[in-house]
Amino acid sequence: MVNQRADPCRQSCRSDSSGTSNSGESSKESSRCSTPVLDADRTDRLREKMRRRIESGDRWFSLEFFPPRTTSGAVNLISRFDRMGSGGPLFIDITWHPAGDPGSDKETSSMMIASTAVNYCGLESVLHLTCCKQTKEKITDHLTKAKRLGLKNIMALRGDPIGADWEEEVGGFSYATDLVKHICSEFDHYFDICVAGYPTGHPEAENYKADLLHLKEKVDAGADFIVTQLFFRAETFLTFVKDCRAIGINCPILPGIFPLQGYHSLRQLVKLSKLEVPEEITRVIEPIKDNDAAIRNFGVQHAVEICKVLLASGEVPGLHFYTLNREVATMEVLRQLGLWAEDPRRPLPWAISAHPKRKVEDVRPIFWATRPKSYIYRTQDWDDFPNGRWGNSSSPAFGELTDYYLFYLKSKSPREALLKMWGEELTSEQSVYEVFTNYITAQPNHNGHKVMCLPWNDDPLAPETNMLKEDLEKVNRRGVLTINSQPNINGKPSSDPVVGWGPPGGYVFQKAYLEFFTSSENVNALLKVLKKYEPRVNYHIVNVQGKNITNAPDMQPNAVTWGIFPGREIIQPTVVDPVSYMYWKDEAFTLWIEQWGKLYEAESPSQMIIQYIHDNYFLVNLVDNDFPLDSCLWQVIDSMFELIDAPPEPFDQEAE
Amino acid sequence: MVNQRADPCRQSCRSDSSGTSNSGESSKESSRCSTPVLDADRTDRLREKMRRRIESGDRWFSLEFFPPRTTSGAVNLISRFDRMGSGGPLFIDITWHPAGDPGSDKETSSMMIASTAVNYCGLESVLHLTCCKQTKEKITDHLTKAKRLGLKNIMALRGDPIGADWEEEVGGFSYATDLVKHICSEFDHYFDICVAGYPTGHPEAENYKADLLHLKEKVDAGADFIVTQLFFRAETFLTFVKDCRAIGINCPILPGIFPLQGYHSLRQLVKLSKLEVPEEITRVIEPIKDNDAAIRNFGVQHAVEICKVLLASGEVPGLHFYTLNREVATMEVLRQLGLWAEDPRRPLPWAISAHPKRKVEDVRPIFWATRPKSYIYRTQDWDDFPNGRWGNSSSPAFGELTDYYLFYLKSKSPREALLKMWGEELTSEQSVYEVFTNYITAQPNHNGHKVMCLPWNDDPLAPETNMLKEDLEKVNRRGVLTINSQPNINGKPSSDPVVGWGPPGGYVFQKAYLEFFTSSENVNALLKVLKKYEPRVNYHIVNVQGKNITNAPDMQPNAVTWGIFPGREIIQPTVVDPVSYMYWKDEAFTLWIEQWGKLYEAESPSQMIIQYIHDNYFLVNLVDNDFPLDSCLWQVIDSMFELIDAPPEPFDQEAE
Repeated sequence: MVNQRADPCRQSCRSDSSGTSNSGESSKESSRCSTPVLDADRTDRLREKMRRRIESGDRWFSLEFFPPRTTSGAVNLISRFDRMGSGGPLFIDITWHPAGDPGSDKETSSMMIASTAVNYCGLESVLHLTCCKQTKEKITDHLTKAKRLGLKNIMALRGDPIGADWEEEVGGFSYATDLVKHICSEFDHYFDICVAGYPTGHPEAENYKADLLHLKEKVDAGADFIVTQLFFRAETFLTFVKDCRAIGINCPILPGIFPLQGYHSLRQLVKLSKLEVPEEITRVIEPIKDNDAAIRNFGVQHAVEICKVLLASGEVPGLHFYTLNREVATMEVLRQLGLWAEDPRRPLPWAISAHPKRKVEDVRPIFWATRPKSYIYRTQDWDDFPNGRWGNSSSPAFGELTDYYLFYLKSKSPREALLKMWGEELTSEQSVYEVFTNYITAQPNHNGHKVMCLPWNDDPLAPETNMLKEDLEKVNRRGVLTINSQPNINGKPSSDPVVGWGPPGGYVFQKAYLEFFTSSENVNALLKVLKKYEPRVNYHIVNVQGKNITNAPDMQPNAVTWGIFPGREIIQPTVVDPVSYMYWKDEAFTLWIEQWGKLYEAESPSQMIIQYIHDNYFLVNLVDNDFPLDSCLWQVIDSMFELIDAPPEPFDQEAE
Repeated sequence: MVNQRADPCRQSCRSDSSGTSNSGESSKESSRCSTPVLDADRTDRLREKMRRRIESGDRWFSLEFFPPRTTSGAVNLISRFDRMGSGGPLFIDITWHPAGDPGSDKETSSMMIASTAVNYCGLESVLHLTCCKQTKEKITDHLTKAKRLGLKNIMALRGDPIGADWEEEVGGFSYATDLVKHICSEFDHYFDICVAGYPTGHPEAENYKADLLHLKEKVDAGADFIVTQLFFRAETFLTFVKDCRAIGINCPILPGIFPLQGYHSLRQLVKLSKLEVPEEITRVIEPIKDNDAAIRNFGVQHAVEICKVLLASGEVPGLHFYTLNREVATMEVLRQLGLWAEDPRRPLPWAISAHPKRKVEDVRPIFWATRPKSYIYRTQDWDDFPNGRWGNSSSPAFGELTDYYLFYLKSKSPREALLKMWGEELTSEQSVYEVFTNYITAQPNHNGHKVMCLPWNDDPLAPETNMLKEDLEKVNRRGVLTINSQPNINGKPSSDPVVGWGPPGGYVFQKAYLEFFTSSENVNALLKVLKKYEPRVNYHIVNVQGKNITNAPDMQPNAVTWGIFPGREIIQPTVVDPVSYMYWKDEAFTLWIEQWGKLYEAESPSQMIIQYIHDNYFLVNLVDNDFPLDSCLWQVIDSMFELIDAPPEPFDQEAE
């Protein structure tokens, strides 16, 4: 895997059907597959994924989140999606808070959070939608927008009426059943629909039996699966499932699991859900109610026990977790159950967007490897994704750079923290080199602060980079400011925990890649050195004005990551593409000014140094095509330094 | 390279520009390349190829042929195209004989021979066209047809009028210049145009000077290059070139080289061309006129000497050979000059068709590897070629099987010869196994005849197959009747003389492949064995009725040959594709009946045996996906035999 990158968005494909699919008979009429890399799991609807998992006996989990109140809360939640997404949930769902303008374009709206989860985090997502006190037109508007944003699943809810004066509405929706019918009829079964089940009966229902019949109505109206309200005893749920089956409810029913995380959250939840907490629980927690850690420990153990009973019953294909936007307790429960994907297999080296339009996407330029959300954003208007072959794409232009300052691309650190990492005051280009060097070494700078991120790298160096750390440190110290790199790989198994991806039984390969900013003096020496590495090393060297020096044959893309799998075509998910490099360079240079230079006062010496680098440095990428041999790229950089260090006359002769 | 194949169509790309193209500046406006594998050489017009070669100082040769009189002559000529094409001519040209219905669809017409050279042999070809005594409409018809067939180059000639009563024609063409103008204006410069030059002046021209001016007119009218009439002294040509340049003829001028091959052909040529044979030649050959070998030796030496002088002059970018449809003398001259590509580099593992529509073709199913002309014929109506990815193609169906008995797909051997190879009389399936075994071992059969071909294999086993010969012999002897195979290759250099292809500096890979007919009893055992090789081995097992047993995931194609090159995307030119396999199987089974069974009398025991195999055997293909390991396919076959040989009870238990 790429070494100067963290890859928090790793997407699970634990249940992919792989190359070992069953024998079967078929005739020449069989339609051809449209794309070779993708497991059916990637293109299936959520209900199909569930069906497959149920058939194969592969249990899943899902995670519920609520929209945050603030923009910084949204940035944090999206990081949490990336982290919790790596454990391999089948889906996540986002609740709908009618009071919070949930369908708006605000960064904190349910709609935008769900859209971000799908498009940028690559998570199969379910958007809640409540119909109480809403006109049909308004609901249709929400659904239309959801569809446009790539959302494919709706949790259809009535929602709580405000106050106790609820009555049937005329021309609106009185029950979730009406909403289910509306979604099915107006959107022609485009959406998969989830509805809520109440293991102890809805608090407002006449009785348990009547509530079960309401649930049956919802399913008969078109709901695909059921998620239940939380409950405290496994047998509550199992009885409920039995009763559902008895009246002909046959769809998947997922238990809502609530790992107790604190005394107050329990009290609040109980108040809202009108549930009674069983005596065996209150008896344990009342004495420890001021000890959050003890309550959480109890909550985890209690949830694990319930889940074990549920899973052992054979009635439960998947578990639904009410996370309360926290991760520790839920992850711990899932780990103890063995459901958390500790080392998730990746279908591709990069996290796949879950937008249906991007289903077929299977190749990306390497440049955005550390900024995948920016890449997705800048290509969101593409109708057609380079499909198997980058070079053959006639994709439209990249989105404007000015548009891409999405809230979730903003740095998570405040200005003060960045100044501490990147320097309150810069005195020379050398002080910039030190920042890069400190980032690589993960050593504190002279003020005692560790450099945890750079404008081009949101996260600390990935652990697997350690093997290159020494080389990276050496070159950064001398002004080869690295922002992206990957080692060469000559046929490691696709199951390799560090560099593996794709279906089992395959082999993955990489060409060594190095990308950095450096001065024009260095570039002059580098070009002399590179002459000796033709055609082994391909390079693209550009400055902010667009001067572009390259030896790419006919401006063709160079595949730098590929995989060979049983029974499949070759997959080449990452390329160095000369055309998109010109778009990337604009973004990469702009980050100097926007994320670093602007930390300082206008025209201050510090800002002038960043501006100078922006104006005068080159962005260089190097590919060593000889992937079976040790990478020669460090040798290239060493030779460049040697050329610079040697007295001037001898080279001039040599260079002529 | 595929081991059970000869590959006579190897196409040279000696001058390809490879990954070492020059550095250059470019901006993001640069258009994307449409296809990664193809060197500019493949898509350029002939005049562009010449320009490139002249710029790089890379000398070429070209070969002239005339259309044959008989169908069997045509079959032989096309084999010669394949053999002589392997030496790397820049182009070949086909003469136009007005008396022989040259524009017709006859197998021997100039038009069809040139079309075959382009489409099936992959040779850049120039079609001669004479305009004398032709209406403009007729000429336009010929050109329209040539364009439709994929021909891109015309040698525009006046042609010899019949008898001496030539006069300017009204409403027709009087001179080649008129034809050049007509081609340019009616076809909007679609065709590259060659015209004839006469180093000693056209026999009918007023004088040498007037003839030079005629030539200038032809060039000014739009001709792209000149091929000269033959001559006997190098200085004749060099003076001619100097005189051409002096009056402003700047296009390439190619000397017509005539390696003397016999006394009578010389006399006839001299009579037709009205040339005088210099005294220094007649002095040598008159005494040896009855000794063909001696004359040919002299002819070769004389041609080599002239060519050396021409090439040394620096005025000659390429040599044009009048082959008289023979190969020995011309090949010998080219070998001595070092122009013959002894070990031609192949741009792809299969010979590329030169039809402009197929420019972008870069992947084919492996099944037709031994019958590439059949594949081209059966896909000739496709508008779109699978481009980089077979699976993504929405190509139309394969052409009907009933159409494909093109004359050049017919066996070159007469019925008697085939009977001697394949058995005058078959007594059992075992006698068929022996034929296959004798083909593999290249040992004479019990009647003393070597089996030089099989219905599925036109040529004897390629030499590189020797490494597999022992295994192939063993399995064929027991009724695993192999028709196609390739060994696994784990990253050999693209320059490897046996398995290499593509631009220099790359690495090529193969998955082991084996394809054979075998009985249903064997298939039953094989299927049990294959269960132990999941997912390592992919298989497709079909019978003539279309029963299809496969473990291909989702009917996806499996890439079995691919290459990694500097600065390029991955190339995967050969796939095992489940869909096209169903078309291939129809062809493969039909060959039993059409090429073998029909040799025997209707309902004779021999024919019944072939019919039985056709009706009851399965066609099996196996791919070992674990290309870095030694192929397991022989082990699979061995285990199949072991299962068959063992006493029945134990396996039945084992198999349950």
